Amino acid sequence: MSLNNRLTLEQYMQEIGGLMNDQLGSFLPSQWSVPQSLQESMSYSLMAGGKRMRPLLVVAACEAGGGKREAALPVACAVEMVHTYSLIHDDLPAMDDDDFRRGKPTNHKVFGEAAAILAGDALLTHAFYSVVQASRQHGVPADAVLAIVEELSEYAGPRGMVGGQVADMEGEQGLTNLEQLEYIHLHKTSDLIMFSLLAGGRIAGVEENALQALRTFGHHLGLAFQIQDDILDLTGDEAKLGKKVQSDVKQQKVTYPYFIGLEASQQKVEQLTREAKEVIEGAGLKDVQRLLEIADYLMSRDH
Amino acid sequence: MSLNNRLTLEQYMQEIGGLMNDQLGSFLPSQWSVPQSLQESMSYSLMAGGKRMRPLLVVAACEAGGGKREAALPVACAVEMVHTYSLIHDDLPAMDDDDFRRGKPTNHKVFGEAAAILAGDALLTHAFYSVVQASRQHGVPADAVLAIVEELSEYAGPRGMVGGQVADMEGEQGLTNLEQLEYIHLHKTSDLIMFSLLAGGRIAGVEENALQALRTFGHHLGLAFQIQDDILDLTGDEAKLGKKVQSDVKQQKVTYPYFIGLEASQQKVEQLTREAKEVIEGAGLKDVQRLLEIADYLMSRDH
Repeated sequence: MSLNNRLTLEQYMQEIGGLMNDQLGSFLPSQWSVPQSLQESMSYSLMAGGKRMRPLLVVAACEAGGGKREAALPVACAVEMVHTYSLIHDDLPAMDDDDFRRGKPTNHKVFGEAAAILAGDALLTHAFYSVVQASRQHGVPADAVLAIVEELSEYAGPRGMVGGQVADMEGEQGLTNLEQLEYIHLHKTSDLIMFSLLAGGRIAGVEENALQALRTFGHHLGLAFQIQDDILDLTGDEAKLGKKVQSDVKQQKVTYPYFIGLEASQQKVEQLTREAKEVIEGAGLKDVQRLLEIADYLMSRDH
Repeated sequence: MSLNNRLTLEQYMQEIGGLMNDQLGSFLPSQWSVPQSLQESMSYSLMAGGKRMRPLLVVAACEAGGGKREAALPVACAVEMVHTYSLIHDDLPAMDDDDFRRGKPTNHKVFGEAAAILAGDALLTHAFYSVVQASRQHGVPADAVLAIVEELSEYAGPRGMVGGQVADMEGEQGLTNLEQLEYIHLHKTSDLIMFSLLAGGRIAGVEENALQALRTFGHHLGLAFQIQDDILDLTGDEAKLGKKVQSDVKQQKVTYPYFIGLEASQQKVEQLTREAKEVIEGAGLKDVQRLLEIADYLMSRDH
């Protein structure tokens, strides 16, 4: 058992979170090379905190496959840049029109709409630069990094996250069935989670069947995560969540509980989590303890 | 002398333009895999025409280096996707607020602002998928394709095109010197042109010194192209340009002629073009005839 395994999950998450803050700072283009306002608007949202859930998954999957943590950090930064860009654009007046995010004014409220659009564009583009540094700085083989580039563009692009966002926007005019809701959840949320796990496995150089297991694990976890979000919006504690509950009901947003009820939704979260853990236990990875802990943590979280 | 060299430049450009239209269609994610509205909004702007100047440079640089045209097409498509996304976002109400582009309503006028933002995001992300296909479909070595990914993220990202766009936006509140204007021109326009030429050379597998020559050629050509734009806005024919002239003066936009006068601007275009041609003639490439023709064409264009 390695030293890291002796940390509790909470300590492990804090450790990775701290590492991410250092790394993200070092991966931002420095002030001399870009307009200062762009540097500031990119940094404002990227360093605004958040759970760093996707970077955690990249690192944990890499370590589960026996890979080195350092080699996973450029891709961990990349996925956080992509996640952050998507939040900046989602918050824009033309989209969800949100004034606050994680208790702070949203990017466009501070820097203006044009700057927020461009900060998002810059973070998305720079994410691919960050991915390539896994090869440049840590010697991850070029064909593995190229596969990661390809998967990032798929899972974050029109067939992935952006497609989910478009479907979500259109769905606000009226979703009629659970399949449509699942499409949105899958692409808006699960796709980047699947990518994170797959990428971690690729950096560690695991076999194809282990990659497929990581992918399935991510699929189930992502869906469970989103259903849990729907549940917490109904049953959660505003103080813990840091946002108003019952917002879905007030916005007349359809959710899992809306379609199948609260109890069946809770059962679905448990079932998905159980299946995810079974798949990852049978994947032939070196040490899946952290991944199992993360699955339990996500299922039982109250914020 | 190959068959292609017997085509006039105009015929060559038409041939590449036709190829691009076919290829871009095949590189768009098909309808079954993305929401139909996203497919339509991406396609609307991508297939709206334009000069396909950047794809032409990718192909011409690849052929100059003795590479196969087919192998250059995925990257040619990628650079056109990046160029198109930048136009969609530039036209948004929060940015330049343009209603028409190439004589057609801009993306957000047809599909709405949210859809236009997402179509741009999708095109930018999908461009990286398209780059990777140079390896998947045409066997370009993984390390060459990885270098292209890295350069696309640099030249199109915060240190490149997006940085130039931010500086341009800020400059609208008052540019004071030629250096600031040159920074904007260099990053907003030259960077993607440099990328296109470099990428073509990388696909052909040319030596490092030839890559540097292609880069310098692109730098000079890009700057000359932009100064020529400034000149045409003062002296051009509205019917040929397809847009109103003197718009820079009316918008109080500073330009090259504003800083150094019309005659000195014309001399600068000639000087940059001459130097670009000298550099590329000394690059040790297999056949630079097309690149020389393109340089002359850009300098003498009237639209």
